[in-house]
Amino acid sequence: MHTFKIDCQLHYRVIQMTEFVFQFEVAEHPWQTLIHESFQFKPDLAFEQYERDAGLNRLIRVNAPEGDLSVSYTAKVQTHIPERNTSLKECEIKDLPSDTLFYLAPSRFCESDLIDTMVTNTFAELPKGYSRVQAICDWIHDNIIYQSGSSDSTTTARDILVNRAGVCRDFAHLGIAICRALNIPARFVFGYMPFYQAQPDFHAIFEVYLENQWMLFDATRMGPIDQFVRVGTGLDAKDVPFATVYGEIELISMSPVIELV
Amino acid sequence: MHTFKIDCQLHYRVIQMTEFVFQFEVAEHPWQTLIHESFQFKPDLAFEQYERDAGLNRLIRVNAPEGDLSVSYTAKVQTHIPERNTSLKECEIKDLPSDTLFYLAPSRFCESDLIDTMVTNTFAELPKGYSRVQAICDWIHDNIIYQSGSSDSTTTARDILVNRAGVCRDFAHLGIAICRALNIPARFVFGYMPFYQAQPDFHAIFEVYLENQWMLFDATRMGPIDQFVRVGTGLDAKDVPFATVYGEIELISMSPVIELV
Amino acid sequence: MHTFKIDCQLHYRVIQMTEFVFQFEVAEHPWQTLIHESFQFKPDLAFEQYERDAGLNRLIRVNAPEGDLSVSYTAKVQTHIPERNTSLKECEIKDLPSDTLFYLAPSRFCESDLIDTMVTNTFAELPKGYSRVQAICDWIHDNIIYQSGSSDSTTTARDILVNRAGVCRDFAHLGIAICRALNIPARFVFGYMPFYQAQPDFHAIFEVYLENQWMLFDATRMGPIDQFVRVGTGLDAKDVPFATVYGEIELISMSPVIELV
Amino acid sequence: MHTFKIDCQLHYRVIQMTEFVFQFEVAEHPWQTLIHESFQFKPDLAFEQYERDAGLNRLIRVNAPEGDLSVSYTAKVQTHIPERNTSLKECEIKDLPSDTLFYLAPSRFCESDLIDTMVTNTFAELPKGYSRVQAICDWIHDNIIYQSGSSDSTTTARDILVNRAGVCRDFAHLGIAICRALNIPARFVFGYMPFYQAQPDFHAIFEVYLENQWMLFDATRMGPIDQFVRVGTGLDAKDVPFATVYGEIELISMSPVIELV
Repeated sequence: MHTFKIDCQLHYRVIQMTEFVFQFEVAEHPWQTLIHESFQFKPDLAFEQYERDAGLNRLIRVNAPEGDLSVSYTAKVQTHIPERNTSLKECEIKDLPSDTLFYLAPSRFCESDLIDTMVTNTFAELPKGYSRVQAICDWIHDNIIYQSGSSDSTTTARDILVNRAGVCRDFAHLGIAICRALNIPARFVFGYMPFYQAQPDFHAIFEVYLENQWMLFDATRMGPIDQFVRVGTGLDAKDVPFATVYGEIELISMSPVIELV
Repeated sequence: MHTFKIDCQLHYRVIQMTEFVFQFEVAEHPWQTLIHESFQFKPDLAFEQYERDAGLNRLIRVNAPEGDLSVSYTAKVQTHIPERNTSLKECEIKDLPSDTLFYLAPSRFCESDLIDTMVTNTFAELPKGYSRVQAICDWIHDNIIYQSGSSDSTTTARDILVNRAGVCRDFAHLGIAICRALNIPARFVFGYMPFYQAQPDFHAIFEVYLENQWMLFDATRMGPIDQFVRVGTGLDAKDVPFATVYGEIELISMSPVIELV
Repeated sequence: MHTFKIDCQLHYRVIQMTEFVFQFEVAEHPWQTLIHESFQFKPDLAFEQYERDAGLNRLIRVNAPEGDLSVSYTAKVQTHIPERNTSLKECEIKDLPSDTLFYLAPSRFCESDLIDTMVTNTFAELPKGYSRVQAICDWIHDNIIYQSGSSDSTTTARDILVNRAGVCRDFAHLGIAICRALNIPARFVFGYMPFYQAQPDFHAIFEVYLENQWMLFDATRMGPIDQFVRVGTGLDAKDVPFATVYGEIELISMSPVIELV
Repeated sequence: MHTFKIDCQLHYRVIQMTEFVFQFEVAEHPWQTLIHESFQFKPDLAFEQYERDAGLNRLIRVNAPEGDLSVSYTAKVQTHIPERNTSLKECEIKDLPSDTLFYLAPSRFCESDLIDTMVTNTFAELPKGYSRVQAICDWIHDNIIYQSGSSDSTTTARDILVNRAGVCRDFAHLGIAICRALNIPARFVFGYMPFYQAQPDFHAIFEVYLENQWMLFDATRMGPIDQFVRVGTGLDAKDVPFATVYGEIELISMSPVIELV
């Protein structure tokens, strides 16, 4: 069990009246308890809060006028991510809960339907279960370079196999695509993680359904996975951007700081 | 208001024990009232029914052993699709209900993020509202040929712009992708429709959020849109296949008949 | 018969010692007679002239040190492009000269092997011959918008079908790809053309082998095709760039002026 | 120095009058001396022989009527491929002979312009020269599985990076694309090679320009590279197919046998 303080500061210059949808609030999820949170817009704007998926994704809409926009979010949250159980088995399709089947299909950035040849040759023969998903993460870690700026907002898992470089969202997309191609439910998870050595930033990992539970995996090895605070959960990055911006803006700075208390 | 009898017969040969997820039951939706329905598997198999999205998508899972599998679904349903209101406006983003925002993002088969140049040049200058969505449908109808077998399960909206041929799902995907690129919420709708002149088959169309309601559009012009019975609603075809098959099977025949009573 | 004066000025800033391969000299070709030409580099650099394809492509290599590089090329050339014969037939494959067969295959920017569905549906049934190639040009003109900056150096014919916008090289690539998919030899032609109303620029068109001759086609309709002065001929744009630059430079200005004398 | 007997038998069923262009004759090339060759069509058909690139590519055209078509080619050839010089350097662009520059550009199946990120990260820092090209071959051998049927006639180098499986032409395409992205001239070579253990088949490898010579490389490691008999040389596979078929046929059998005398 860990307790974290989150202090997320976003600063924009809005060129023209712009609608923002933010997702930076920690999720309602059994693995974490929200002790306190607050956020503030400067200027003080009317906003709307709403959620998708029974609180798993919490969003805030705001319509910001021309000028500066600052967003300040602070939270205190306790996490209790289950210990890793490395002996978990993969489910037969027939044994998968129905609500996990949705995470077997391809999605915009995880074209699991287009990477069959690679997946079959590389992973189909491995013993099924936790160790196979770990082997997928190891393969990604060994074959894909983490490189800021090497991908953009349209880069897909298939592109990452070509480029062999990407950032955390790309590592997650590739892991998800490979798992789905093997009929293992997998989904994108977005949140805060204290990095060993890097600028504060949001982090993206993925989770996989094994035996009777979802389990987090992070092919980037950038930080302690048991210290991950969940914000968003979706099919891929397009479901859970920290900010969707419908208008012309400039991102001046972002600083999503998370500290172990 | 119309009343329909649906008689959907599917027949498979199962080569090896296979998990099926079927979606052929009519949806729970304000525009249709289910008077009666029943379905039957032959052989008589244990199955599980579940739903997604509050009844909007109803699914049936069944694990079928080697041998023949027949599925028989009959239903009687009354539809009351609102009359077309051709003066509906497009919403500004800020005026869109929050639960429609999800349908602005790209999806596996509707890469709205990759067709900007085409969409901007062709549709950005048109007057906003119902007539613009109708213009999109007209453009698709005039530029894309309906041709059985011209696409497959991985064909996307972008591919359809290249191939200039497709089937109903492709027409719907392209309509959706164009709408989303214009910031108009759009989603895939799957169901039964009595065709003027064609073999009985499932049909795919799309719906678009205008002013204060979803409205159905069908760029194929294959049948009377007010006689559409909804089965599934999703981001694109991958969300609502009539059958997802995890195993080796052969589809012997399918006959989704719908008749106006 | 026309006589032209060409005055092509290129100006670069070379950041680091850079190898250039230029192709701006008018080609040796039966349809044009070179009366006079001269070129000059500033600073005065050693260069190498060479050709490919028996003078059809004439190239100049120069290794330029850091600093400014100016290239000045002037020429006087008489053209005598055959009058358009609109009754030319397409050749059966068996009647094509062997040296035209090379221009039936796909190339980097003309993926004639990937656009079969579109080509078959749109052009396969048209009467063969000049009129079919003209129909291809008309289709491109009607469906693709000429738009500066809408494409880049990796844009292919297939991309143009998606984007529905491009510049002259893209119009040519699409024309070539469609012709090749129909088993009509087609190749990329690059040169000078006096535009009706536009900044001086190089121009790219294509030529097609009909009956017993190559014939120029220009889907852009940007200028008088009988006033085209050929510089390069190749499979596609990658074969005949006006400048290939192996190093870090900045293009300060280019002004390829052509005037009817 | 090796002497080889080649016995290449092709057998087709021609459904409809079909034009064939064959390339199975050994090339005129300084590394090999043709002692004797003969070929025969059954039925006995009129044919045309022609060449491209000064004998480097020798082709035979024949128009075959409906029915069976057999092609029998036998040759005796002596090869004297230079010994491998593993200390060869890469040329600076400025030192490359002009006729090698053509092999720096991307081609249909070798999109060297689309794999920059991967190439830069993986190979840019390696010491230049023979050893770097060998490292490219080793990387391909270690990362790509040789798998019959895993690719088709439209598969490109970029696809191979995704699929991580291919046949000899794909291995060659990837090697070529990587070399070109590093500004090393590289081209596709097609011919006969006695395999250690496999069915007789044509083989595809690539050659790279180092210091003052072309040198053969084979990332498949399927046979002795000094026992390669050259048939075709081109930008990629589309330039040198053993048979281009313009019509409807069935390939009954092919047996390109090569034996060391």
